Amino acid sequence: KDYEQPLAARIIEVEELTKWSFYRAIVAEFVATFLFLYITVLTVIGYKSQTDATRNSDQCGGVGILGVAWAFGGMIFVLVYNTAGISGGHLNPAVTFALFLGRKVTLPRALMYILAQCSGATCGCGMVKAFQRAYYIGYGGGANELSQGYGRGTGLGAEIIGTFILVYTVLSTTDPKRNARDSHVPVISCFGMPKVLAPLPIGFAVFMVHLATIPITGTGINPARSLGAAVMYNKKKSWDDHWIFWVGPMVGAAGAQFYYEHILQAHLTLYHHHHHITR
Amino acid sequence: KDYEQPLAARIIEVEELTKWSFYRAIVAEFVATFLFLYITVLTVIGYKSQTDATRNSDQCGGVGILGVAWAFGGMIFVLVYNTAGISGGHLNPAVTFALFLGRKVTLPRALMYILAQCSGATCGCGMVKAFQRAYYIGYGGGANELSQGYGRGTGLGAEIIGTFILVYTVLSTTDPKRNARDSHVPVISCFGMPKVLAPLPIGFAVFMVHLATIPITGTGINPARSLGAAVMYNKKKSWDDHWIFWVGPMVGAAGAQFYYEHILQAHLTLYHHHHHITR
Amino acid sequence: KDYEQPLAARIIEVEELTKWSFYRAIVAEFVATFLFLYITVLTVIGYKSQTDATRNSDQCGGVGILGVAWAFGGMIFVLVYNTAGISGGHLNPAVTFALFLGRKVTLPRALMYILAQCSGATCGCGMVKAFQRAYYIGYGGGANELSQGYGRGTGLGAEIIGTFILVYTVLSTTDPKRNARDSHVPVISCFGMPKVLAPLPIGFAVFMVHLATIPITGTGINPARSLGAAVMYNKKKSWDDHWIFWVGPMVGAAGAQFYYEHILQAHLTLYHHHHHITR
Amino acid sequence: KDYEQPLAARIIEVEELTKWSFYRAIVAEFVATFLFLYITVLTVIGYKSQTDATRNSDQCGGVGILGVAWAFGGMIFVLVYNTAGISGGHLNPAVTFALFLGRKVTLPRALMYILAQCSGATCGCGMVKAFQRAYYIGYGGGANELSQGYGRGTGLGAEIIGTFILVYTVLSTTDPKRNARDSHVPVISCFGMPKVLAPLPIGFAVFMVHLATIPITGTGINPARSLGAAVMYNKKKSWDDHWIFWVGPMVGAAGAQFYYEHILQAHLTLYHHHHHITR
Repeated sequence: KDYEQPLAARIIEVEELTKWSFYRAIVAEFVATFLFLYITVLTVIGYKSQTDATRNSDQCGGVGILGVAWAFGGMIFVLVYNTAGISGGHLNPAVTFALFLGRKVTLPRALMYILAQCSGATCGCGMVKAFQRAYYIGYGGGANELSQGYGRGTGLGAEIIGTFILVYTVLSTTDPKRNARDSHVPVISCFGMPKVLAPLPIGFAVFMVHLATIPITGTGINPARSLGAAVMYNKKKSWDDHWIFWVGPMVGAAGAQFYYEHILQAHLTLYHHHHHITR
Repeated sequence: KDYEQPLAARIIEVEELTKWSFYRAIVAEFVATFLFLYITVLTVIGYKSQTDATRNSDQCGGVGILGVAWAFGGMIFVLVYNTAGISGGHLNPAVTFALFLGRKVTLPRALMYILAQCSGATCGCGMVKAFQRAYYIGYGGGANELSQGYGRGTGLGAEIIGTFILVYTVLSTTDPKRNARDSHVPVISCFGMPKVLAPLPIGFAVFMVHLATIPITGTGINPARSLGAAVMYNKKKSWDDHWIFWVGPMVGAAGAQFYYEHILQAHLTLYHHHHHITR
Repeated sequence: KDYEQPLAARIIEVEELTKWSFYRAIVAEFVATFLFLYITVLTVIGYKSQTDATRNSDQCGGVGILGVAWAFGGMIFVLVYNTAGISGGHLNPAVTFALFLGRKVTLPRALMYILAQCSGATCGCGMVKAFQRAYYIGYGGGANELSQGYGRGTGLGAEIIGTFILVYTVLSTTDPKRNARDSHVPVISCFGMPKVLAPLPIGFAVFMVHLATIPITGTGINPARSLGAAVMYNKKKSWDDHWIFWVGPMVGAAGAQFYYEHILQAHLTLYHHHHHITR
Repeated sequence: KDYEQPLAARIIEVEELTKWSFYRAIVAEFVATFLFLYITVLTVIGYKSQTDATRNSDQCGGVGILGVAWAFGGMIFVLVYNTAGISGGHLNPAVTFALFLGRKVTLPRALMYILAQCSGATCGCGMVKAFQRAYYIGYGGGANELSQGYGRGTGLGAEIIGTFILVYTVLSTTDPKRNARDSHVPVISCFGMPKVLAPLPIGFAVFMVHLATIPITGTGINPARSLGAAVMYNKKKSWDDHWIFWVGPMVGAAGAQFYYEHILQAHLTLYHHHHHITR
């Protein structure tokens, strides 16, 4: 075996808890998820207010659903880029859950990240509500709900597959053991370089899933995003469907982790030439 | 001659069939094509349902044809990035055909990839149909057809040139022998680095062709995509035109392969400095 | 300590003033800010004239607010890329202010940059006005103002958080000391390479903030942009709100600089392997 | 002086004419310009036919002017990427003219490139006309003309500044002598790597200029594009304004070349550390 896999993270590592970098990472997750929800929900509310036929004659005046999808995907691109070196750029409990299943993070880190993400998202939505209370409540508060005409099974399925795409992309673009042997579009790493590009496909994956599933559920694929909006909007319909936006993403994340570890990574060996260089 | 070209793949290589990496690549092609059709056809159906004047007063409400074009191009970017190191990221029988003509893949691999792509695409469309049967049938099922007012010759021509652009981009961005000598925008490789960027222009090529030819044929340039949608939609008109979406892409792919190998690559020698570094 | 931080810039460095590269940088900031305002304000005016219901029956005819947001973000991407090697690609007094607070630029350089940015922006708006005087005045001159229904506190808050996102992205993507130790999306540098990608997330950050806050203030987050438009448009309303577009960005920039230096960078040590390579 | 500038190209180099790579580059310029005009003009015609109020009730149905701007910018990104290693990826007589002024290409190469670009563009427009004659003529053939209400001076100015932005970006992103000394967003090269990214800002520059000037002239900034469309459309109005689309781009290109060579490059010295590495 010519490649030494990094040791799997232990469930609990006491030493980790004594380091500033651990707490700094939690702060970075909180701030980034705050900014993520602030920008995206503000975009949703602004779009809905500008195209409201009862207030405005110009129904094409806002950024469109395409603009909303860009807001979600683009913010993930920017914020993963910014926080990658500090916290790994999870920004999503489903991503943290998948990396915990893959033994890439310890249990305390996973729990603290998820706590930071959920409170950051809630504060981000709260900031939008504080800025424009009437609009926030009148235009749905950016909360995830099943759209009329779609059943719970469809909503759950859409969340599962959507999160599968996101987590599959996160794992594929950040794995240090990518094997280029069978590739005609080789993705060989140069001193770890290609990973530098990972935030772009991750952001695009989020953009893509929003294009497809905004009409169905408004697109969750991130339980912190769904929770924060539900807490601040706090309407019955939004809480009734809320379980979908935890069960769906967690099942999708676990599925992507299983697919990645047990199908794609099985029997993986490293490209010799590459190995030689990175030594 | 200062550059040793990789040996052309044999038509059949028995050893290949005994390796897990061969079967893993087939699984990866199936899963990625499934996800590709799932997201893109869901985007098409969602767009059409949101802008249906008979159901909805807001004709600007969906992601627009621009959003549909982004869905096709963006998913190819994400999925080529994700599968490049596993299967080469073909996701398209026309791409596989061109690489087989160029002796980059063996015949069994080409056939198995095409089979995986076609069944993945069919299952992806089937998932959309299962989610929302009424919408799927009512809004055309994402199937490729000649639009009213366009003849078969025009549709075939559009498919040929569109696939030529895609395959020309795939070959140009992944060729290990790119020669920077005449270039004022040099694309010199650093330990194989530039190829890392290949998924972006490939995804953009798909995006561009969709912008131009959605009004004509809905844009195929990928026989697996056209077949999967035709099987699940299963209407006479869609089957009548179906040959266009196999003949066009295959002719375009063969043309791009010929252009690349016999015009652009002819008498190619490598930039000495670069050669020196990559040794 | 295994990493030698570059010395903080002195407040004043006399030698700097004797070098051509200092004056060249000022010219580059002027020209780039000129081009930035020219393209973006022309896009705003063109969009508003094409969708004016009193002149034109096609309300979907322009590039949309999404196109306007792309113009701002895309120009920053292009111009930061072009000027990064000459002036550092600030193009924004708030960015210059943050880098001055962080002791990355001297006081004379900061003042001269801000002067160049403000006069470049004014000339860029003046060029648009010269091209199409009637349209420029009739369609708001690209000036930043509080939209109807939003209070000063909301506008100020939107500018503060928007600029925080931009400056946080600038600092995160260009810091030579990024630490990849805790990262699962590592952003390790290869001879300084990752920074090459910095203009893309910076441009996207600008794009994102515009998606969210165009409905509120038209989006400033750049005092030179707001000043240039206000000077050329020169209406009372635009001057009344003008202080928001200086106070907001400067507070946001200082906040991002504080967050970056005192939270994220604290106790930072470099990844040993990386250190070894870059020596 | 610690950097050896590549020798300026002679006006005529006889040896060049005996090499296959010279003729291959001309073919590549022809094919790429053909594909550029084919996709972009098809997008324009398709957009106009889909939003024609006399034929279609859905005025928001097409890709929008934003989609048209993406078609031009995106195709330049893809095609510069594809041809950079073969011909340098000019695809535009104004770019070729600037590189000739900068002594980067010989006179015969410049003339042959311009000839190839103009004939490729004409054939690309001809292909669109052959596909859909009635639409092509009815919807303006993608030809550049002054829009109603804009004077010749405005159109000429828009072409000059637009081409300045494009050529300034081409020169900035491909110059081997970029100096990172003053930069806080360093763009240091790693074995020539950063240039790999050049096609993206170049494509974005084209996208940006289209967002701003489509309402004025339809955006030329490429005489081959304007000539090809004028030849195939062949209406008096289009020929009357045609000189603007040669004089404007050539003046803008010469201006950008002058700015780059005499202001930005003056007294340039190379970053020592970098120099050491690239030796």
